Amino acid sequence: MEKVTHKTLACGIELACAEIPDRRIAAIEFRLCSGIADEPPALLGLAHVVQETIDLGTAHYDGRGLSDAFDAIGASHTGWTARESTGYRCVVLPEFLDRAIELHTEYLCTPTFPDDSVEVAIELAQQEITALQDDPQGLCDKLFSAQVFGPLLGRHALGEPETLERITRDDVAAHWKNHYHTGRMIVTAAGGFDAKKLIDLLEKRFAGFGSAAPAGRNGYRVAFEPRQTHHPKDLAQEHVAIAFPGVSVEDASFPVQRVLIAILSGGMSSRLFTEVREKQGLVYWVAAWSETPRGSGVLFLGASTTPERCDKTFDTLLREVDRVSEDLTDDEVERSISGLVAKMRTQGDLTRSRCSELADDLFHHRRPIPPEEKIARIEAVTTERIRQFLADHPRDRLNVLTLGPRVLERAAAVGR
Amino acid sequence: MEKVTHKTLACGIELACAEIPDRRIAAIEFRLCSGIADEPPALLGLAHVVQETIDLGTAHYDGRGLSDAFDAIGASHTGWTARESTGYRCVVLPEFLDRAIELHTEYLCTPTFPDDSVEVAIELAQQEITALQDDPQGLCDKLFSAQVFGPLLGRHALGEPETLERITRDDVAAHWKNHYHTGRMIVTAAGGFDAKKLIDLLEKRFAGFGSAAPAGRNGYRVAFEPRQTHHPKDLAQEHVAIAFPGVSVEDASFPVQRVLIAILSGGMSSRLFTEVREKQGLVYWVAAWSETPRGSGVLFLGASTTPERCDKTFDTLLREVDRVSEDLTDDEVERSISGLVAKMRTQGDLTRSRCSELADDLFHHRRPIPPEEKIARIEAVTTERIRQFLADHPRDRLNVLTLGPRVLERAAAVGR
Repeated sequence: MEKVTHKTLACGIELACAEIPDRRIAAIEFRLCSGIADEPPALLGLAHVVQETIDLGTAHYDGRGLSDAFDAIGASHTGWTARESTGYRCVVLPEFLDRAIELHTEYLCTPTFPDDSVEVAIELAQQEITALQDDPQGLCDKLFSAQVFGPLLGRHALGEPETLERITRDDVAAHWKNHYHTGRMIVTAAGGFDAKKLIDLLEKRFAGFGSAAPAGRNGYRVAFEPRQTHHPKDLAQEHVAIAFPGVSVEDASFPVQRVLIAILSGGMSSRLFTEVREKQGLVYWVAAWSETPRGSGVLFLGASTTPERCDKTFDTLLREVDRVSEDLTDDEVERSISGLVAKMRTQGDLTRSRCSELADDLFHHRRPIPPEEKIARIEAVTTERIRQFLADHPRDRLNVLTLGPRVLERAAAVGR
Repeated sequence: MEKVTHKTLACGIELACAEIPDRRIAAIEFRLCSGIADEPPALLGLAHVVQETIDLGTAHYDGRGLSDAFDAIGASHTGWTARESTGYRCVVLPEFLDRAIELHTEYLCTPTFPDDSVEVAIELAQQEITALQDDPQGLCDKLFSAQVFGPLLGRHALGEPETLERITRDDVAAHWKNHYHTGRMIVTAAGGFDAKKLIDLLEKRFAGFGSAAPAGRNGYRVAFEPRQTHHPKDLAQEHVAIAFPGVSVEDASFPVQRVLIAILSGGMSSRLFTEVREKQGLVYWVAAWSETPRGSGVLFLGASTTPERCDKTFDTLLREVDRVSEDLTDDEVERSISGLVAKMRTQGDLTRSRCSELADDLFHHRRPIPPEEKIARIEAVTTERIRQFLADHPRDRLNVLTLGPRVLERAAAVGR
């Protein structure tokens, strides 16, 4: 069994760690409470350039030397830039965890941002933006995120061609200086290690790393405005995306929303899969999901279909949401809950998932939520609560986007 | 620690299972030794249609009923169709493993293939083939696989529009009848369960399920022929793919090939990543990998780049392979080995990976290979053996494919 410790360290880091003695590996995540939404508007793409270049030159290593040092201990590490945070995670054999932390400290606290690394990172980001034109699903996600979440949370990690062009090495160094400090840092770990030793090591390594005052702990407000757009593109398939307001991770009815999504899209017997894909053969890809920046939540429906079936697919997606309030049964709710609970119980099987779950908990709830508490909340969801949720959150204010050769005829459905 | 059992059961199934008592989950895989290469040439896509429809109607359930039954025990299950095999895998809480096996038996042994399910599956496959036109990487993989592996192993799981059109419900039932029987079945399991009980249950459930005589245990021969093709397409990026002969999983120098690929493409400090991406900013995606049907092996290099950098990227990819024999150091080999060994040690962390690894072992080696034996073989790789490997497998007979707006100027490089 695991033993969880949650503590704000003297150095300013907020730590949560789960010691799981029988694991032969350890995972550690460093999450900065600063993301795409925190970039200067003229320099979109900056947070991602910082993340891509931060380990390409440090006080004691050049980029090659540092990645050689990670490779020498067999550490697989990865980084990502998100709406409200930037993360770095590493999985390593327990005996090398101390060394891995030392290497993370090296690049998080003493990056030098060599000129040529910054230039290459900007060039690669420009290439990736161009490549989005060949990736309809990626392009659809980018356009729809901007439409639904607006000018701050709706930004794309890669930035825009004209803002990337402006970014200099000094901008990169300044962004790091302002946004990388212990007061913005959540650190979580899971697996085979000793919590006390981990705490001592973090205190020693990160003491004096910028301001220790908590920062970046509040979300941005999402102003959901109904809207419909079509983006013409010469494609074989049409992409349809629909969004409407839901609840945030912090909301008491978030577990209800999770079960609702599981009913729509959680498995082989989910409604969208069986009704839209298996029975009608309308689409080969269909899904429902939620996106939940801190303090807000939006429900999404998406499908790829042939252009001539675009309107029928749109109608069917919304019809399936409506049908939940009409003919939901206790059996179906129970099955969806079983599936969710089994997934929650089995995901702890993966050490790095447990580590990231702890970081999500601190990010949204400011404390680690025991897995059993989360499971109990899911198990308390009833048919009645789902019906009530749908009544409280009617899908009568829609954001709709289509990408492909065909314009949707159903313009009237939006904001009616 | 795990306890591995390997046994050919009286019913004909070849079983390997790893009991790992401290795991709170169990994974089981049913692998049929029959895949895309075993389809009748006039009915390409048939194996995949069988896999997609096999659980949509059985002796005791309709499709919805069966997936509800899986959901009720929170079992996540998945299926796939590969070159030489078809697989079904399930992850479940240990207390539901027996029930999960019962449900797998239900669809593997008593499918009814309802007419409408077959029609929908064919329609969806047609849609997916059309959608490949919007997915340059997927299209590139399909075209290059056909070019490199030829008319049997180079087939695509989805089939071709004209062969899909011909497939009837009776073809589907006949393919199942001929290819689904215990003599073609490898079953593996990992996690929390009792091996003896598992064996008893499999014997009981699968007794008399078709011929118990071993079948499908030999690979197809790959005749590698140098060739270069260009597939013009109006894209923002150019896709470049290169292939040359390597060794099979069963070959004594397969571990050498694995370390070579790790040196080229195994991590942040791999040569392709640092030289081609990070230093030159030539490409945002670059990789090296191998594909290894039974008895053969092919090495691949791939990149996405801007059309004007297409030739430079091509040259650089090959140059990086050549450079390995010129300036490889013991340090670099050691680091790559550390990385590979750490990955091998940590992948056992995921119960379903361990389960699939056992199935791969039986498929290629006809016995489970202890993880420590695999690690020892990797650790025995030296700089000298890698140099020798490159001398024994010169990249002088190339398969090359480009997909995008620009024709490669380097035609002379092929088959020189």
